Amino acid sequence: MTNSERMIEGISEGNRRALGRLITLIESTRIDHREAAMDAINQLHKPKKNTVRIGISGVPGVGKSSFIEAFGLHVIEQGHRVAVLAVDPSSPKTGGSILGDKTRMEQLARNPDAFIRPTPSAGSLGGVARRTRETIIAVEAASFDVVLVETVGVGQSEYAVADLVDMFVLLVAPGGGDDLQGIKKGIVEMADLVVVTKCDGDLIPAANRAFQDYRSALHMLNPGSSGWIPKILKTSAHSAEGLDEVWSAITEFHKMMGETGALDAKRADQATSWMWDEVTSTLLKRIKTASVQVRDLEAAVPNGDITPSEAAQRILSDFER
Amino acid sequence: MTNSERMIEGISEGNRRALGRLITLIESTRIDHREAAMDAINQLHKPKKNTVRIGISGVPGVGKSSFIEAFGLHVIEQGHRVAVLAVDPSSPKTGGSILGDKTRMEQLARNPDAFIRPTPSAGSLGGVARRTRETIIAVEAASFDVVLVETVGVGQSEYAVADLVDMFVLLVAPGGGDDLQGIKKGIVEMADLVVVTKCDGDLIPAANRAFQDYRSALHMLNPGSSGWIPKILKTSAHSAEGLDEVWSAITEFHKMMGETGALDAKRADQATSWMWDEVTSTLLKRIKTASVQVRDLEAAVPNGDITPSEAAQRILSDFER
Repeated sequence: MTNSERMIEGISEGNRRALGRLITLIESTRIDHREAAMDAINQLHKPKKNTVRIGISGVPGVGKSSFIEAFGLHVIEQGHRVAVLAVDPSSPKTGGSILGDKTRMEQLARNPDAFIRPTPSAGSLGGVARRTRETIIAVEAASFDVVLVETVGVGQSEYAVADLVDMFVLLVAPGGGDDLQGIKKGIVEMADLVVVTKCDGDLIPAANRAFQDYRSALHMLNPGSSGWIPKILKTSAHSAEGLDEVWSAITEFHKMMGETGALDAKRADQATSWMWDEVTSTLLKRIKTASVQVRDLEAAVPNGDITPSEAAQRILSDFER
Repeated sequence: MTNSERMIEGISEGNRRALGRLITLIESTRIDHREAAMDAINQLHKPKKNTVRIGISGVPGVGKSSFIEAFGLHVIEQGHRVAVLAVDPSSPKTGGSILGDKTRMEQLARNPDAFIRPTPSAGSLGGVARRTRETIIAVEAASFDVVLVETVGVGQSEYAVADLVDMFVLLVAPGGGDDLQGIKKGIVEMADLVVVTKCDGDLIPAANRAFQDYRSALHMLNPGSSGWIPKILKTSAHSAEGLDEVWSAITEFHKMMGETGALDAKRADQATSWMWDEVTSTLLKRIKTASVQVRDLEAAVPNGDITPSEAAQRILSDFER
């Protein structure tokens, strides 16, 4: 049996070391590693598993790690295996990410039914998104049936994460108005579930106010076409209060989306758009390398020296040569 | 002087017939027309004009035509020239669009300082968006300094329109909750200005309630990074009430964005992304024609028979052959 076959077999048996090896290959930029990773992913890829993929976003300080640890442990108690992944393309610049940080989720990290992986330091958001979805396939193949994908809300990472998961959860803190400074425009309306964290002790009155305010706001926003009405809940990682309600909301969502066929449709659409995203990003990479004019045009177009259409034509002509 | 030179000169002088001829060329699918249009646009294209581009969205029935007519006339009274364009990619299917419909804006249509153009029946959203932005250049060259771009909210057209304009305005009717069925998820949070229409007669109490509700909702949503706090206003096309406040909000926005450099930055970013959008969409069109496997892969990927990455690789190999 080759190393690769051993790795794939190990993953299918839920072996964490084999899983870690595959993810390392997925994250690597070496071509031989990339090919080995793709080969393994192609073999492990099994659609229509009864898995739940949840995106978790919120500004730094809202209590993501505390929530994920407490919630993860709760979900494990319900009989599941939980993987925690992270999308944070800025981390290479900061030299380390606070997302997926095992030191902040020590108890969960030690649990054999949990698997925590810090963000891949892969650079571009597109690269991180691709690696994350391949890692989702890998952890699901290793029988982690609940996958939490954390995002810190930098740049466009929430949109990338929303495109990777079944359900998008936004954590907000009791501060109310203050915290809005951090939450990116458009994210509240994207959430399927809003969770007010830190509802304990002195913060309970503020948490209740935030709860009411967000509930009124959500009431004014369109629930979208899936039939699911976004919910808002209160939790405390400290007291574990509300975690069961969060899990109930998620299973309710999953059940509803499953019954209407909306979940399959969503994952099918995501797969199709991932395919085209990869085709597009590969082509754009090649064009930027192949076209001598690109750098000049990227300066000329924003300046208004040349129309975007004219610039596009020139780039395409270069590419065809 | 060639026909083309005559047309360009006519447009620069504000001649409506010359403008109409150019827009017909822009909307045409004939290659010779396309080339003539691009040539004219390249010559007429002058950045940094003191023009205002406003997107106007809202569900059918909210009163877009009434609002645009009343508002357009108000803006003309302030000494401007107003162009009304429309983005509605679904119109070819319905055989005619209600957007940009001169019969619903008769008084405005007759005004020499107004120019109304129904949606180009060009099919794809990308095609409609490109033609619309070229038409914006054309009308601005003909001295229409306020450009209103209408969208009915079908599919992704609001996102396309938001990418074409300086400011995004959402019209909502006094119905409150009922109307949310129509407004697409994400649009409320995208708006720089929300206008409650039909604030007259029997509807005043309902309009006031909608006003309060949306105001509270907007308060909970992040204003974004430009520094502009989204406003909400009430209007009545019937009594002309509130139209001056809408125009004041728009000029205030424009002034603020101008002073901070945010407007130039926004238009520069839009130009760059238009360039890459065109490169990408042209390449994708070629790929879909060149690759024999695409149709099969587009069925296999959503089914989960093959991973998106593997499918992407196959498509790219086809394309390289």
